[in-house]
Amino acid sequence: MPTRLTHLFVRTLREDPVDAEVASHRLLVRAGYIRRQAPGIFAWLPLGLRVRRRIEAIIREEMAAAGAQEVHFPALLPREPYETTGRWEEYGDGIFRLKDRKEADYLLAPTHEEVFTLLVKDLYSSYKDLPLTIYQIQDKYRDEARPRAGLLRGREFSMKDAYSFDYTDAGLDVSYMSQRDAYERIFRRLGLDYAIVKADAGAMGGSRSEEFLHPTAVGEDTFVRSAGGYAANVEAFTTLAPEPLPVDGLAPATVHDTPDTPTIASLVQVANDAHPRPDARPWVAGDTLKNIVLALTHLDGRRELVIVGIPGDRGVDMKRAEVAFAPASVEAATEADFARHPGLVKGYIGPWSAAGAVLGESSSTGIRYVVDPRIGSGTEWITGANEEGRHVFGLVAGRDFVADGTVEVAEVLEGDPAPDGSGPVELARGMEIGHVFQLGRKYAEALGLKVLDENGKLVTVTMGSYGIGVTRIMAVIAESNNDERGLIWPRNVSPFDVHVVAAGRDDSVYAIAEDVVAQLEAAGNDVLFDDRPKVSPGVKFGDAELLGVPLVVVVGRDAAEGRVELWDRRSGEKTAVAIQELPARLAAL
Amino acid sequence: MPTRLTHLFVRTLREDPVDAEVASHRLLVRAGYIRRQAPGIFAWLPLGLRVRRRIEAIIREEMAAAGAQEVHFPALLPREPYETTGRWEEYGDGIFRLKDRKEADYLLAPTHEEVFTLLVKDLYSSYKDLPLTIYQIQDKYRDEARPRAGLLRGREFSMKDAYSFDYTDAGLDVSYMSQRDAYERIFRRLGLDYAIVKADAGAMGGSRSEEFLHPTAVGEDTFVRSAGGYAANVEAFTTLAPEPLPVDGLAPATVHDTPDTPTIASLVQVANDAHPRPDARPWVAGDTLKNIVLALTHLDGRRELVIVGIPGDRGVDMKRAEVAFAPASVEAATEADFARHPGLVKGYIGPWSAAGAVLGESSSTGIRYVVDPRIGSGTEWITGANEEGRHVFGLVAGRDFVADGTVEVAEVLEGDPAPDGSGPVELARGMEIGHVFQLGRKYAEALGLKVLDENGKLVTVTMGSYGIGVTRIMAVIAESNNDERGLIWPRNVSPFDVHVVAAGRDDSVYAIAEDVVAQLEAAGNDVLFDDRPKVSPGVKFGDAELLGVPLVVVVGRDAAEGRVELWDRRSGEKTAVAIQELPARLAAL
Repeated sequence: MPTRLTHLFVRTLREDPVDAEVASHRLLVRAGYIRRQAPGIFAWLPLGLRVRRRIEAIIREEMAAAGAQEVHFPALLPREPYETTGRWEEYGDGIFRLKDRKEADYLLAPTHEEVFTLLVKDLYSSYKDLPLTIYQIQDKYRDEARPRAGLLRGREFSMKDAYSFDYTDAGLDVSYMSQRDAYERIFRRLGLDYAIVKADAGAMGGSRSEEFLHPTAVGEDTFVRSAGGYAANVEAFTTLAPEPLPVDGLAPATVHDTPDTPTIASLVQVANDAHPRPDARPWVAGDTLKNIVLALTHLDGRRELVIVGIPGDRGVDMKRAEVAFAPASVEAATEADFARHPGLVKGYIGPWSAAGAVLGESSSTGIRYVVDPRIGSGTEWITGANEEGRHVFGLVAGRDFVADGTVEVAEVLEGDPAPDGSGPVELARGMEIGHVFQLGRKYAEALGLKVLDENGKLVTVTMGSYGIGVTRIMAVIAESNNDERGLIWPRNVSPFDVHVVAAGRDDSVYAIAEDVVAQLEAAGNDVLFDDRPKVSPGVKFGDAELLGVPLVVVVGRDAAEGRVELWDRRSGEKTAVAIQELPARLAAL
Repeated sequence: MPTRLTHLFVRTLREDPVDAEVASHRLLVRAGYIRRQAPGIFAWLPLGLRVRRRIEAIIREEMAAAGAQEVHFPALLPREPYETTGRWEEYGDGIFRLKDRKEADYLLAPTHEEVFTLLVKDLYSSYKDLPLTIYQIQDKYRDEARPRAGLLRGREFSMKDAYSFDYTDAGLDVSYMSQRDAYERIFRRLGLDYAIVKADAGAMGGSRSEEFLHPTAVGEDTFVRSAGGYAANVEAFTTLAPEPLPVDGLAPATVHDTPDTPTIASLVQVANDAHPRPDARPWVAGDTLKNIVLALTHLDGRRELVIVGIPGDRGVDMKRAEVAFAPASVEAATEADFARHPGLVKGYIGPWSAAGAVLGESSSTGIRYVVDPRIGSGTEWITGANEEGRHVFGLVAGRDFVADGTVEVAEVLEGDPAPDGSGPVELARGMEIGHVFQLGRKYAEALGLKVLDENGKLVTVTMGSYGIGVTRIMAVIAESNNDERGLIWPRNVSPFDVHVVAAGRDDSVYAIAEDVVAQLEAAGNDVLFDDRPKVSPGVKFGDAELLGVPLVVVVGRDAAEGRVELWDRRSGEKTAVAIQELPARLAAL
């Protein structure tokens, strides 16, 4: 049976909802797919639910093909397992917590590692039971500070989350690749561009971790990619370090007065004016070594200052710094920090002074000094001389100072070389649509999931965690498939295969349209039928464009002559087709 | 592809879980269908999820056949709509409440009348848009004081809840019957016995209300039914009142000393000993009129005493009293209540009127006196004389006293006549598996859902609400379909069509079993295949019985001769079948 617009629970809106910032949100509300219930919380109308179900079906098929088995956990879970792994606290304000009538603590689960681990512990005890990958498609909750962009970042959202269980690292690699391959198949079937980027594992812990990012202007993540195929989250980008250079024969460092040069720009200017290079090449920001004081707060509450040295042509990327120094949190040093360390001359900090090394391995400030990988042995720099208004020129790393290590905190810039040698990178915006993690033994260890191995020895299980945001994917598809007139669904997630519009005032047009609909349904098409008797063709066409079924069949004035119009919503192309050829034409598409 | 027991995420348990009170809970856990996460909160393993999905599919098909459209609401909802209808308070401790990071109030919805009403208000505005029935299958939450019996009464549970919208009472009747008919089809397809009983509308308000009760010993409800087809919840049972009798010619009432007769039994004994009837028929408890003092607490907090007169052969059913006096709450009068009313002589209370006692010391307490419908005009009673140690004999209702009305609070007893004249009723235990309500205009009024009618006049919409407990139904089916060895699923909800057991040590048996499985799958059967190589046939048969797939095919010692055993799990019957005939035999069942 076709779905009739005289019956379907939908109303299209002419106006954009006031709170909609992005196209997907605007169009999904206007076309009657979803409705807001609270910030980041939506109700699903029949059209929205149909698209969601089709996405879910594709995911389920590929999970089954990957040998993953479906289970289902509650959203409401007790505190204890999350307490054991420390996440009850770690999530901070980011989750919904509640108490039952007996004052027992519960949460609305943001992700289910703990209870999947415990379920496997409950059922399985031998290496023979493994490998195992189980998953669910389930509504999850996060109390986002700023729910935004409709379904792109909601507080209630549907996710497919899978978890793999192995007893060897090699087994985990196989399970991981199996899910990773399934994700590639899923996104290809959904018609979604994606970049697989190396990702920081963040709060989930573990080792290997990749994100599937869909390139889109509304994306929340910045990632880098090279023409040669490299892709990484900015947090996971690694700098190509130069080969060590010989230090023999380099001129000794010299200290110069450089008054009023607290910034890199002012320093470069003074350097070029007062201390030009012998060969007249101008000094540039990249020739300077900028030393920045960061304050770490460790998990035990201890505060530690760290000085990071980076080329002066870029800043510190605090997100990269968070990852580099995790699990400590990072902020810029405060005035109070400087006050406690009068040896740090703000604006003129360097690793060396006329008295010798002041930072790094051979110094005695007690402050760790770590540098960007570009500050390699044999490289020469202009940098602070640890005296107000003075800089040192030609300071050589590895000769004049030795840092306590390297660190990846510098901004990534367009044109930086990809670490795999595949050429310069560009920066792009992306939305995370999937994430595969090697969790390793973190959760199994915390919750005591062990199995007996071939030798009868108890070994801790190693796990992977694999997530796809179902409702977010729907928004991302809508975001990348629309024009100014409405949505344009890819065929395999469209709520209907074809949208038939009866466009005319004649009863005969409606009778022929009924016949066309019946033929299309008989040929296996899921048909949306605009059978509204008193609505003008113009309004019907507008609604068809807004709703976004990719194929529209218009039964209009030529219907009596046995012809209808086949309308490709994406290209706008309209073709006259004989009614008897229509089912075959659709099947051929 | 078959599901292999070497791969399926399941473990059967030999021991009953300690907390399982009923067969369904015990067996669903032992057979690896569900696992407890917290009181009344369960995780679903692959087998459990398969049964649940099949039940959902049947419900979805019948909803579609009834013209209902599927939508989906969040579980997490803001307080406001529930505040508007008063249910935020009414639910008391029965729901989960929580706050988000901005201290806004939310609840985990126990049922969704409010937000469905608001969604229709958002989309629709004309009588032409109606009738409309929309539904969801969704996880709901109630903070039960005593979650029990596994899935029978959980705190997280899946429900299909549908809501109908009409603008005329006649329309509501049609929508109501459409859902009611769909429920009958659903329960028939699920193989579930049911009685449709008149129900009290309870907290939902509204007029017509029926429950679908599945008769089962573990049921939480008592209901009455007659051989002639009457069925009602005990709360909704109405008493057949006798025709008024003439009072002329009846002997005048006489007061007698009846020392030490505070109970009906002691009163009947003294009556027979000291005051026998002239015709020597013995006095029985049903000849006495018992007057019981109840204390009502009204919504505004006011406490009111009410005296109810009922035949002495039965007590007050407090659940019926709750309904009779709703929305006030009811309890027995306390000593303090009696102390405030010294005119009430405990154990000897007689008919009363608002003006005071009709017998004994006169007072003007203003206490309402309501009686059971059996206390009809012209009936004669032995009852208290409102004096310590004295009763009145031959007191005639309608002559000697007139009550302030009738009330349905007396216990219903086996043999009571059905109100529709269909004969005596019996009492049965039942579990509520569905509920259909005519909500009327309560929610539409509270939330302002109006549409323009044919005359352009705004009219308030009238609604129905229709619920089926999906997870409870699964438990009820398990409860009514098992034996001491395990579950026995009805075919149309079984997790698999057939369970093939390779029973033998020979590799050839496994090879033939693979072939049998392939043939059955090719014929469209969903096959569970016990391919475990090192498990004894006895253990495999035990697991097959526990898991409860209704048809089992044993590939064993006769396999080499081309024969397998077809085993009917319910009857226990085993038949030798030639392998080439097996698919046809299964298809014929």
